[in-house]
Amino acid sequence: MTKAKRRLPRKPIISIVRQNGRLNVQGINKWYYYWRDPYHLLITMPWSWFLGIVASGYILLNSLFALAYLLQPGSIANARPGNFWDAFFFSIQTMATIGYGVMNPQTDYANVLVAIESWVGLLGVAMGTGIAFARFSRPTARVVFSRVAVVTAYDEIPTLMFRVANKRRNQIIEAQIRVVLVRDEMNAEGQFMRRLYDLPLVRANNPIFILSWTVMHPIDEYSPFYGATLADLEAAETMLVVTLTGIDETVSQMIHARHTYIASEMLWHHRFADILFQKSDGQRYIDYNHFHEVMP
Amino acid sequence: MTKAKRRLPRKPIISIVRQNGRLNVQGINKWYYYWRDPYHLLITMPWSWFLGIVASGYILLNSLFALAYLLQPGSIANARPGNFWDAFFFSIQTMATIGYGVMNPQTDYANVLVAIESWVGLLGVAMGTGIAFARFSRPTARVVFSRVAVVTAYDEIPTLMFRVANKRRNQIIEAQIRVVLVRDEMNAEGQFMRRLYDLPLVRANNPIFILSWTVMHPIDEYSPFYGATLADLEAAETMLVVTLTGIDETVSQMIHARHTYIASEMLWHHRFADILFQKSDGQRYIDYNHFHEVMP
Amino acid sequence: MTKAKRRLPRKPIISIVRQNGRLNVQGINKWYYYWRDPYHLLITMPWSWFLGIVASGYILLNSLFALAYLLQPGSIANARPGNFWDAFFFSIQTMATIGYGVMNPQTDYANVLVAIESWVGLLGVAMGTGIAFARFSRPTARVVFSRVAVVTAYDEIPTLMFRVANKRRNQIIEAQIRVVLVRDEMNAEGQFMRRLYDLPLVRANNPIFILSWTVMHPIDEYSPFYGATLADLEAAETMLVVTLTGIDETVSQMIHARHTYIASEMLWHHRFADILFQKSDGQRYIDYNHFHEVMP
Amino acid sequence: MTKAKRRLPRKPIISIVRQNGRLNVQGINKWYYYWRDPYHLLITMPWSWFLGIVASGYILLNSLFALAYLLQPGSIANARPGNFWDAFFFSIQTMATIGYGVMNPQTDYANVLVAIESWVGLLGVAMGTGIAFARFSRPTARVVFSRVAVVTAYDEIPTLMFRVANKRRNQIIEAQIRVVLVRDEMNAEGQFMRRLYDLPLVRANNPIFILSWTVMHPIDEYSPFYGATLADLEAAETMLVVTLTGIDETVSQMIHARHTYIASEMLWHHRFADILFQKSDGQRYIDYNHFHEVMP
Repeated sequence: MTKAKRRLPRKPIISIVRQNGRLNVQGINKWYYYWRDPYHLLITMPWSWFLGIVASGYILLNSLFALAYLLQPGSIANARPGNFWDAFFFSIQTMATIGYGVMNPQTDYANVLVAIESWVGLLGVAMGTGIAFARFSRPTARVVFSRVAVVTAYDEIPTLMFRVANKRRNQIIEAQIRVVLVRDEMNAEGQFMRRLYDLPLVRANNPIFILSWTVMHPIDEYSPFYGATLADLEAAETMLVVTLTGIDETVSQMIHARHTYIASEMLWHHRFADILFQKSDGQRYIDYNHFHEVMP
Repeated sequence: MTKAKRRLPRKPIISIVRQNGRLNVQGINKWYYYWRDPYHLLITMPWSWFLGIVASGYILLNSLFALAYLLQPGSIANARPGNFWDAFFFSIQTMATIGYGVMNPQTDYANVLVAIESWVGLLGVAMGTGIAFARFSRPTARVVFSRVAVVTAYDEIPTLMFRVANKRRNQIIEAQIRVVLVRDEMNAEGQFMRRLYDLPLVRANNPIFILSWTVMHPIDEYSPFYGATLADLEAAETMLVVTLTGIDETVSQMIHARHTYIASEMLWHHRFADILFQKSDGQRYIDYNHFHEVMP
Repeated sequence: MTKAKRRLPRKPIISIVRQNGRLNVQGINKWYYYWRDPYHLLITMPWSWFLGIVASGYILLNSLFALAYLLQPGSIANARPGNFWDAFFFSIQTMATIGYGVMNPQTDYANVLVAIESWVGLLGVAMGTGIAFARFSRPTARVVFSRVAVVTAYDEIPTLMFRVANKRRNQIIEAQIRVVLVRDEMNAEGQFMRRLYDLPLVRANNPIFILSWTVMHPIDEYSPFYGATLADLEAAETMLVVTLTGIDETVSQMIHARHTYIASEMLWHHRFADILFQKSDGQRYIDYNHFHEVMP
Repeated sequence: MTKAKRRLPRKPIISIVRQNGRLNVQGINKWYYYWRDPYHLLITMPWSWFLGIVASGYILLNSLFALAYLLQPGSIANARPGNFWDAFFFSIQTMATIGYGVMNPQTDYANVLVAIESWVGLLGVAMGTGIAFARFSRPTARVVFSRVAVVTAYDEIPTLMFRVANKRRNQIIEAQIRVVLVRDEMNAEGQFMRRLYDLPLVRANNPIFILSWTVMHPIDEYSPFYGATLADLEAAETMLVVTLTGIDETVSQMIHARHTYIASEMLWHHRFADILFQKSDGQRYIDYNHFHEVMP
């Protein structure tokens, strides 16, 4: 328990903005906020920026070494004395460990610089290429959530449903869905708070999530939706937060996806169009073109 | 929540084909479907393809640089002017950071190309070798499931059983098995759906899964199998989906295996042959030759 | 089960020191205790030490090879015979795989040394840069716990509360908090023991932990705090151990944080200042300047 | 579900040997059984073997390329024609990407070989160094289990206890212990089986496992030990399998440890010696010298 742990977040005031009926935290999750977590910064920035930064760093570092070689005229054989570019290209040949040898260190001073540069180069290359690979291999989920959730009768119980589809052609092992209802509440002491409630699901896990999964929450007397009207839900800024986690079959790593439904995206007395059909020869097929379709 | 998340899967119609009594999703899990996930693609393709792609990329990249060196005649010392192969071999010596130095950059143009090539080479080599190592070290389970499941009396309760064996000579830590019954159902509203039911097991986890494990589901009045006939099971396209997950003792990484049993692979009133025997000197041994054997 | 597993810890007597009312284990978690776990040692030491060790190792290894090259006079072309620095710089050029070629191995003895050095260099560089990258990419949580916990009425039930804020601008997926009360107890046999009790929480997980989370434990008749006085708590050296675990959204790796509250850091009949405000235009904002503030 | 998954383990008969009262599976967990899992093999073999294999592979590969260079006399400049060692050393300089340049490829044939060798070298080096680093950074637990388990009264209930200590100077996050009793049983149908029972523990998880943890299982009427005698336990080959899992605080990776207690290692009516003491100044300390000590 160091003092550091008690320090406040960097930007102590954060706005929560309403956009299209959604509450959004301003500036959250933008990669350029990570400046104090360089690894996160380098992982989340766009590829173009990342490659630009790596290239700039490479040029900058070689320029610094070039200037250092120039400090002692004649330190590099076959380099034009005082010529920055020759020193720069010699530095590149050294840091990248090419070492053609036409230009080569003539003096002890140059040799010491080469020793330092080789060491800096090895660590720097490891960092740059390590981050590049971490970016490339970062586990991600590619799932699609239906545009809306619907409430319709299922086995005579009004049931909240939404659909999830796996866009990859592999399985998500041990897929688990958690649905949390978030709404404004006032407690007995008159304090305002945003409260969270877990919604019980008919199935919260799916061992065979390859194609499509209809997630269902029965609205019985234990559900926080029981007896609620659309006006209630909107007044309390109600939203559903859906979290999907699982293990990617191919890379055996944890993946996750998240989606929110706000009150106006839950359609009462609607149901989803079928996506599972049967051909005349009895063969089944799934037509994702109807994935987002709902009907009264 | 970006728009991208709402886009449909790439190929919106997917066939589910019946093969030997099994429902299979056509084309699922074929490596060449991953073209929009290049990392997954490169991880799952066969080694021969992977090595071929790496080699082709290496040749292509070096050819491009060779052509660039040729644009300025005389840019490379000791290379025959206008000779593609000399430029190509010089490019190889540069990208692989060998740098014999007999051929070497003569002009600023060539030196700038060398700087760019070294940078491209370092990133490219990191990607290629990183993926090669990720392929080689990918955690996999090597377990074998018995060819059929049987239903036999155990402690006077009819019990569904199947066997799993670990083919590796190490332990699977925290091995967990989940068995889900999948069958067609029609709800009260007349909608057809594929429903999943968890089957309760006598033991769902095994801290010492080294050799063989007999997984048992008692068919009591809470079991979805209770009172079902083989005809019922087949009509409803019933299948058991078995998922095994655990931690590989050696590499401390998550591993998983999956198996399905269809109705015709569940043998009623059969039992497994013993695989644990005792020698005359009291020493025990396991004979896997009887692993798949059943008897009435 | 080898004998090794039964060996005692290295330093069999460990002091537990009282500092500012906290019990601290002396010397725990200091990086220089890891000398028998070299990987842990290299991961946890300060960067300055790590870079120093890598540099020293690099210099030492090259010096050893330099001495070996010197054993045979004339083994390196263009090196002054018997000159340590020339041999040293040749070794650097070899280990870093630069190979300018002006100095080069003349004899079979030197060539064998080069073969060995290249092999040692490749493994050594992989170790050094691998650890450097592991240090850089180590997943860490950046969360801040409120300076004190308070006990105040919530929905008319006395409730223990503390706050946690995520200092990063990303989400912690599947954030989970566990609060354990630790206190001295004597059992019926008169034996003294430090016992642990889980405190039930209103919510122990939070799927949307971006900003701030108020963790609440209701002090009802099942709570170990029920009826306890401050004097009781202090006499029993009571402390709360809070553990937060979750998955970092950005790097998909497990992160964790820990905090302890001792008896004097739990304020009875106080409550936290609000941090969620509303502007005149209805827009909400969070002001972390009041994060640690309590009021009676 | 491919055919491969149904194939039997490689060595279908495995002996279970009694050693000092323990049942041991012969040959399990020996690294040389992994020949069909090369990654596991290379991870688990002793360092001396690993380094030997890497060195041999390096020499073999370079010898093959040396022979290929020799096929065309004069392919390498400044190499004695037909001299294996010159070709070998040239190959080393090429594969390790040193490239002094004194020896260099003279012909297109040699240049093509160099291109192939650079590509083989880059992949090979990545494999070798990747495995070396994976070996070095493999997460391991360093915990010690007490030599015996004891059964003594705790709060007037007979309780099975054993101790665990963390030998590292860091914490194990979310440490969890699972204790399973394994014994021979015969079912109602007369079939012999080895059955597993989870033992309920007073605490199965420990958020602050830094030093020592006494794990306790109360032997009440729900315990499989209830009313059992030592003779019963031994006749049924009873053993306790203890599994500890957790997250290493330093490297944020899963670690695990396992221990078994056989019937003769459970001491009835004994208790552990204290290890927590208090100095005259009230300061506490832990003396691990008494860690394994029991007293009647």
